[in-house]
Amino acid sequence: MSEVKSDIEIAQSSEMLPIFEVAKRAGISEDLLEPYGRYKAKLDARALADKPLRGKLVLVTAINPTPAGEGKTTTSVGLADALTSLGQSAMLALREPSLGPVFGVKGGAAGGGYAQVVPMEDINLHFTGDFHAIGAANNLCAAMLDNHIKQGNSLNIDPRRIVWKRCVDMNDRQLRNVVDGLGGIADGMPRQDGFDITVASEVMAVFCLASGIKDLKERLGRMVIAYTYDRKPVTVSDIHAEGAMTALLKDAIQPNLVQTLEHTPALVHGGPFANIAHGCNTVEATKTALRLADYVVTEAGFGADLGAEKFLDIKCRATGLAPSAVVLVATVRALKYNGGVAKADLNQQNVEALKEGIPNLLRHVDNIQTVYGLPVVVAINAFPTDTAEELALVEEECKKRGVNVVLSEVWAKGGKGGQALAEEVMRLCQTESKLTFAYDVKESLKQKITDIATKIYHADGVEFTPSAAKQLQQLEELGFGELPICMAKTQYSFTDDQTKLGAPENFRITVREVRVSAGAGFVVCLTGSIMTMPGLPKVPAAEHIDVLDDGRIVGLF
Amino acid sequence: MSEVKSDIEIAQSSEMLPIFEVAKRAGISEDLLEPYGRYKAKLDARALADKPLRGKLVLVTAINPTPAGEGKTTTSVGLADALTSLGQSAMLALREPSLGPVFGVKGGAAGGGYAQVVPMEDINLHFTGDFHAIGAANNLCAAMLDNHIKQGNSLNIDPRRIVWKRCVDMNDRQLRNVVDGLGGIADGMPRQDGFDITVASEVMAVFCLASGIKDLKERLGRMVIAYTYDRKPVTVSDIHAEGAMTALLKDAIQPNLVQTLEHTPALVHGGPFANIAHGCNTVEATKTALRLADYVVTEAGFGADLGAEKFLDIKCRATGLAPSAVVLVATVRALKYNGGVAKADLNQQNVEALKEGIPNLLRHVDNIQTVYGLPVVVAINAFPTDTAEELALVEEECKKRGVNVVLSEVWAKGGKGGQALAEEVMRLCQTESKLTFAYDVKESLKQKITDIATKIYHADGVEFTPSAAKQLQQLEELGFGELPICMAKTQYSFTDDQTKLGAPENFRITVREVRVSAGAGFVVCLTGSIMTMPGLPKVPAAEHIDVLDDGRIVGLF
Repeated sequence: MSEVKSDIEIAQSSEMLPIFEVAKRAGISEDLLEPYGRYKAKLDARALADKPLRGKLVLVTAINPTPAGEGKTTTSVGLADALTSLGQSAMLALREPSLGPVFGVKGGAAGGGYAQVVPMEDINLHFTGDFHAIGAANNLCAAMLDNHIKQGNSLNIDPRRIVWKRCVDMNDRQLRNVVDGLGGIADGMPRQDGFDITVASEVMAVFCLASGIKDLKERLGRMVIAYTYDRKPVTVSDIHAEGAMTALLKDAIQPNLVQTLEHTPALVHGGPFANIAHGCNTVEATKTALRLADYVVTEAGFGADLGAEKFLDIKCRATGLAPSAVVLVATVRALKYNGGVAKADLNQQNVEALKEGIPNLLRHVDNIQTVYGLPVVVAINAFPTDTAEELALVEEECKKRGVNVVLSEVWAKGGKGGQALAEEVMRLCQTESKLTFAYDVKESLKQKITDIATKIYHADGVEFTPSAAKQLQQLEELGFGELPICMAKTQYSFTDDQTKLGAPENFRITVREVRVSAGAGFVVCLTGSIMTMPGLPKVPAAEHIDVLDDGRIVGLF
Repeated sequence: MSEVKSDIEIAQSSEMLPIFEVAKRAGISEDLLEPYGRYKAKLDARALADKPLRGKLVLVTAINPTPAGEGKTTTSVGLADALTSLGQSAMLALREPSLGPVFGVKGGAAGGGYAQVVPMEDINLHFTGDFHAIGAANNLCAAMLDNHIKQGNSLNIDPRRIVWKRCVDMNDRQLRNVVDGLGGIADGMPRQDGFDITVASEVMAVFCLASGIKDLKERLGRMVIAYTYDRKPVTVSDIHAEGAMTALLKDAIQPNLVQTLEHTPALVHGGPFANIAHGCNTVEATKTALRLADYVVTEAGFGADLGAEKFLDIKCRATGLAPSAVVLVATVRALKYNGGVAKADLNQQNVEALKEGIPNLLRHVDNIQTVYGLPVVVAINAFPTDTAEELALVEEECKKRGVNVVLSEVWAKGGKGGQALAEEVMRLCQTESKLTFAYDVKESLKQKITDIATKIYHADGVEFTPSAAKQLQQLEELGFGELPICMAKTQYSFTDDQTKLGAPENFRITVREVRVSAGAGFVVCLTGSIMTMPGLPKVPAAEHIDVLDDGRIVGLF
């Protein structure tokens, strides 16, 4: 009987190809690479910018996630390996993991089992330093802002109306709410403040949406960081910080090339939160991959109501990109969870609960087909506890919508376990489709929010709190009315109440606050309480991470 | 007439050798390198650990610095290039710059003029990410500590007695004093807190003193982060953070290889503050360089009273290393400043003021010769405004002590401008010398502090505030009595009053607080008010840093 290996054991026992060899397979010449060690490299995206976007884009998204995660990254990696194993030219465009979850509950985010990107430890720890660069740029801006106030405040900034937070790439609830600038006149101006996790920062969102250095600097300069005593917005360029911030991000903005366990090239780059931001890897990486490969597999954060919606309505709208096919990942376990089964009981067959949970899947399927007009396949990420009866039920329900269900066994088998999925994806990519959006960006902010809520969430409508309504009006007066919307909502439900699983009906969404991310180019719309700084659990994953005397890392999962 | 080029212009117009080529010149085989781009690499120090420490160590230190800096790094780089140009096998072991000063007043710290280490922009910005890794390890510990309290506080930690601060690599005075953990029960425990700049953290000090992964982890585990309600120390290993912290530092601990403008190999690694910590590059880098080259040029922070004292009494004592020669850097301008001339008037000849300032230089010379028993040369870092009469005076005064003065013109001429200095250094390295320390580590903490104050600062004695005296007693009771001392004192004066320039007499040092850095292995002794989080000036250097559309950085100096 073979023992089940952990992700890090599988990753560490794999034979990686030198990164120059991986690049060669992707048609990238050596002089475009800046190696970071032997198995990672920054890729000169600018030098490739003239090449046509020849690839088909495949978006991997999911049903509403459960606390355990559905295996979207694993499925993405396995699908790309499967395409490669079928002789296709395929490439991945994925997000970088954040250190916070690595040391908290979730562990790493480089796929799992035999469908991982490697070197797994490096990718999960500092990788090529992008997130550190983003944090430093964010915090430089904060230091310059507070310094401006300390040095005379010629811009007339109201310290109570600073909207810029410092950040750390760490789950550190102690920093959510602070009073800083204490100590005396030489130590700044006392004010209420707080920290976000780096991935929730607008710099991260800007980083992921920028096209090249010039656009990056312009976007950074546009970011609103505070308001004056007379309520005028103050931007990064008002305090002359965008040049130095760009200098900090100059190398980071180049996509990172790594490989899967089966040597498929992968660009792993950027990683904004999928609630406060748009939740997908950089535009630079996605476009670069489309210039190099025939199939590019990418993913969007959380479930399709949040991640895919923003991928399509924000990223695709801003760039002109459109997926040729969508993969909707589900697990039988997660569907049962959506049907009301407790986490501890998910290993038991429960067809009734599955029936209750499937409408969640079907609503996502419908949205992608009818709202966005895209072809979709459902990938069931296989677990040993799935029963034939359960799988048949999922298949049957999807068939009614003309959607095929494919069992994905990439976790256990690597690319081989994803060939059926790859075949179906290739078939869908041959079909004609035209991306339509959930809303017209020319509409009012309220209308756009309402369109998302009614068409994607299937809400009856939207309540705006008085302060949110006032903020919307102010943002329109300031000229931000034609920006797209970035919804910040719980990922666990179509509603703004995380306990309402499945496919709830007869509910309204409450918008309690709106903010502009003028650099990223969207209006963030907060529903419910959105966490932008996670905390550590009772026993953090960090307690089990260790380094042996020979330098090998253990306990990372 | 040729225009004077800025440091970054000189650096950007230089032709670098590929890092593998630089390594080859240093006798390092390719398989021991992890490249970070084409011109930087991490070096596998472990693989070289069996080689003998064959090189002569040359310590570059300085008189008490003035606000402008004396050019210690420039002199170090130029000296190494001069040794190379004379056909010697030479290598540098230097500190990495901190982002804080780069964006604040000081600008970069990679040397200047034609005596620089390159790639200058990379070294001054993120380099290979070491400081980010150190910051992340520091902040992970902080998050785990506060999380421990939030999750039940089984260790009985007194939140008022937490001595561990978070850090950022930024000059951000707003974070010096904060109250965090606000917001409510879910958001932590409200308490007074504060941030240090990363280079002032104990993790940085530990990083620089550790020998290999195992020692690093043990030192991290020993660090005292808080005290319990019954005043018992709580260490990093009590909260099980040392493994994950070591994982974050695993790659960083390998020395970074770069080159000078003239292709001399340089290990640039680590960079602790020279007040709260010991102020010199890593032991790993120094030892590795000594295994590879015949001459290793290294530097210590601030003036010789702080930097050289700690280099010798802490780093050399801990490792058994000893310099074969000491270079004491001075400028005529700085000596005049020490003689009471205002900064604006330093360009005028002023022999009288110079006479007043020279005793500062002579006291440092005496300390190195008589206290430490080491041979010394005075290097005058040349400025165009220096006059022959001024230079002759310095020479004459040093001659009386049997010490040669050499004009160093490396800023303007590179290695060629440092050949006279190199010849003198080589001569001194042939002389017999035996390092003696300023104090016996077996003495009481009070006696050791007194020895430093009287022998090195030439104070009449030391006052201990009642609380400092109590702390000293507690530390001895806790078993920390046999650690060496790390003095935290203003760098501008031999005294603890930064306005007392030259070679003051008839003063006492006041010790107001002592703390243990149990991982670094020293007792920090605070005199006067020591800044562990700098602020930005009225117009931060960051405002002038920019990136052109082609990706070139400008305004970094």
